[in-house]
Amino acid sequence: MRMVDLIEKKQHKDPLTEEEIKWMIENYTNDTIPEYQMSAMAMAIYFNGMTDEELSALTLAMVESGDQIDLSEIDGVKVDKHSTGGVGDTTTLVLAPLVASVGVPVAKMSGRGLGHTGGTIDKLEAIPGFHVELSQEDFISLVNQNKVAVVGQSGNLTPADKKIYALRDVTGTVESIPLIASSIMSKKIAAGANAIVLDVKTGAGAFMKSVERAKELAETMVNIGKSVGRDTMAVISDMSQPLGKAIGNGLEVKEAIDTLKGKGPDDLTELCLVLGSQMAFLGGVGSSLEEARALLEENLHNGKALDKFKTFIQSQGGDETVVAQPDTVLPQPRHSLEVKAKETGVVSKIVADQIGIAAMMLGAGRETKESQIDLAAGLYLHKKVGDEVKEGDVLVTLYSSNEIHDQVVEKVLNHIFISEEGSKPTLIYDIVR
Amino acid sequence: MRMVDLIEKKQHKDPLTEEEIKWMIENYTNDTIPEYQMSAMAMAIYFNGMTDEELSALTLAMVESGDQIDLSEIDGVKVDKHSTGGVGDTTTLVLAPLVASVGVPVAKMSGRGLGHTGGTIDKLEAIPGFHVELSQEDFISLVNQNKVAVVGQSGNLTPADKKIYALRDVTGTVESIPLIASSIMSKKIAAGANAIVLDVKTGAGAFMKSVERAKELAETMVNIGKSVGRDTMAVISDMSQPLGKAIGNGLEVKEAIDTLKGKGPDDLTELCLVLGSQMAFLGGVGSSLEEARALLEENLHNGKALDKFKTFIQSQGGDETVVAQPDTVLPQPRHSLEVKAKETGVVSKIVADQIGIAAMMLGAGRETKESQIDLAAGLYLHKKVGDEVKEGDVLVTLYSSNEIHDQVVEKVLNHIFISEEGSKPTLIYDIVR
Repeated sequence: MRMVDLIEKKQHKDPLTEEEIKWMIENYTNDTIPEYQMSAMAMAIYFNGMTDEELSALTLAMVESGDQIDLSEIDGVKVDKHSTGGVGDTTTLVLAPLVASVGVPVAKMSGRGLGHTGGTIDKLEAIPGFHVELSQEDFISLVNQNKVAVVGQSGNLTPADKKIYALRDVTGTVESIPLIASSIMSKKIAAGANAIVLDVKTGAGAFMKSVERAKELAETMVNIGKSVGRDTMAVISDMSQPLGKAIGNGLEVKEAIDTLKGKGPDDLTELCLVLGSQMAFLGGVGSSLEEARALLEENLHNGKALDKFKTFIQSQGGDETVVAQPDTVLPQPRHSLEVKAKETGVVSKIVADQIGIAAMMLGAGRETKESQIDLAAGLYLHKKVGDEVKEGDVLVTLYSSNEIHDQVVEKVLNHIFISEEGSKPTLIYDIVR
Repeated sequence: MRMVDLIEKKQHKDPLTEEEIKWMIENYTNDTIPEYQMSAMAMAIYFNGMTDEELSALTLAMVESGDQIDLSEIDGVKVDKHSTGGVGDTTTLVLAPLVASVGVPVAKMSGRGLGHTGGTIDKLEAIPGFHVELSQEDFISLVNQNKVAVVGQSGNLTPADKKIYALRDVTGTVESIPLIASSIMSKKIAAGANAIVLDVKTGAGAFMKSVERAKELAETMVNIGKSVGRDTMAVISDMSQPLGKAIGNGLEVKEAIDTLKGKGPDDLTELCLVLGSQMAFLGGVGSSLEEARALLEENLHNGKALDKFKTFIQSQGGDETVVAQPDTVLPQPRHSLEVKAKETGVVSKIVADQIGIAAMMLGAGRETKESQIDLAAGLYLHKKVGDEVKEGDVLVTLYSSNEIHDQVVEKVLNHIFISEEGSKPTLIYDIVR
């Protein structure tokens, strides 16, 4: 087989066979196929796409390029959730205990944040003592015992995907739906999930700027999942404004606790119920999505979800009194600053990515992989899109361990728009299953 | 500037500026831009093309990447001719003395052949003593003295093009009209031509299989030429069957001599008159293409073109008695074999590239750059498409210094088709100016 022939096939929209894709991924991973041929292939895929058969072959070839986590020792259907990334996305912190509280095992492998999108592990580490370095055995036994555990990424998962991603990043081929979809799905499958729930974000703070592109990505991933024997569902959710009201690691833990008490922001609560009911349903709880949702709602109000969060925190070394006294236990910022509205009207737009960058500037996110995170830093949105506001009302409170610079205040003010009219944006655009 | 941004511009059909193209070519030539980025760019160009402005900037940037031949010491307009390559294409051997005989300087830099297409230098070297290693000074003084000289490729011409071509060859991006056009034109411009005549071949033996693609390439090259101040014209000519009747180095020299005597094959003679009249006209001879053609026809019949060929051969050390006694002076094959028709009818098809490969197998061409050429080897087509043939008539004579294998005979018989009907193919499909 010659890579140049495969490139030419793809160029002429002639689908690659499973054998050809496997050969290509194996030989690219072991450095036999040079970068310049893979980048030409990635560009040809960008223009000509991939068929469903090609996509499942590509995904499985990337799964097989490295280690695969074996979760077979865990009882029940292992359901994983993946979000394409957003600002103030506290869903995993809420969903892990919530879904576990109805008996579905949540064996979650999570990452750290980069840029304006946060990472679940950073958030959990805002809880004193909480650690995610678990051996594979401990991880599995915790899930069997409590139905929930979160572990940091370990092992050599999907090295082919890592190598291709690094190349795509410098060759203008990141924004290719087949390549994004196979990349995400290969990681989830290698991490051992039986079923997968996808939260595909759309809007300014998301990678997919339009609902159409988000839907195309969701459909592509759901097709891949099904074709490789993993039950998969997806939600297209709004990320034009940040999700919930808190952005920042400690602040989001507190917001997750509020949500698990049934007192969280409307949008975060609703999205968690939609995603959670898919996870529960795929995990075999409830005979319909509606029934699964009813069980979850019950546990948000009867304290069972919150209890599960306590157990989960304690089991991974964290201080579970955070649930009762978040303001005492969580790291507190030395500086805070209220940003007030300069006019009266209705909030018409909060630009998610720019607000995320403001939070990063306060210390809540990493600019580079090496940056240190300030767990107390972040911001709290007192108003969201559609809320009425009077001149002088507090729009946002900023928090940081360091002095707060005017440029952050300006950035926030420049990206929260107040008009004569405005309305709550759609939260859930679509469900793909 | 970052290459990834330029790739993304091209991906989104946003034209690159002259400055960006210059930066890209400079930094790719000096190895600052890695191969994997240039291959992604080449693939994006394959899909999205280039505007006229981008093409002239790319061509000039490649010209400026290396040496440029200075022909300003030669009197008159220097007209170069380029053929996209074919089988039995003896035109340069005829055109050089023919055009020089009407007073237009022909300062030709030529190459060697590879695969089934021959090279002018190999053909000239079939004439005993002929050499193409000339100093720049001698080359120029010969052109000023005789109006004609041919030199081998020397100097570091268009290194950017060489590097890009090598990359395109292994990344499926050879068949891109903007990249082919800028590659050819950059070489012609670096070689110092003021005006350029292009012979774009189409059909089985040519790189461009369809007339439409050939025309698109011709138009693209003519546009580039004009935009960078070089008068340019192009002919779209047939290469479904070989041009003329002889294929092979010594055989083609003999055919060129016949043609310069006015006794050459019809198609070769006609194509030389069409290309020659464009060269003469662009060189300032004749007030119209028709007038230029009349002068050339005259010199084919009054002996002046043949005399010029003699002078040209002598001036570069060759044995000019070849003109009077080709069969004595040219290398003679030890073996020959007549291939006879197995049926009666009309020749309906002679597959040019396959016949070229048969000639190569006899020793007339190089399979790899290192192969030695047998100057006496080749084949002679007694019948061409449209000719009537009777069972037992000689179709082709094969020549070689080595024994002739049956597989060559079979290859020839398999690629000359005899049917109930057949007609001469169109020779000149179009003229682009």
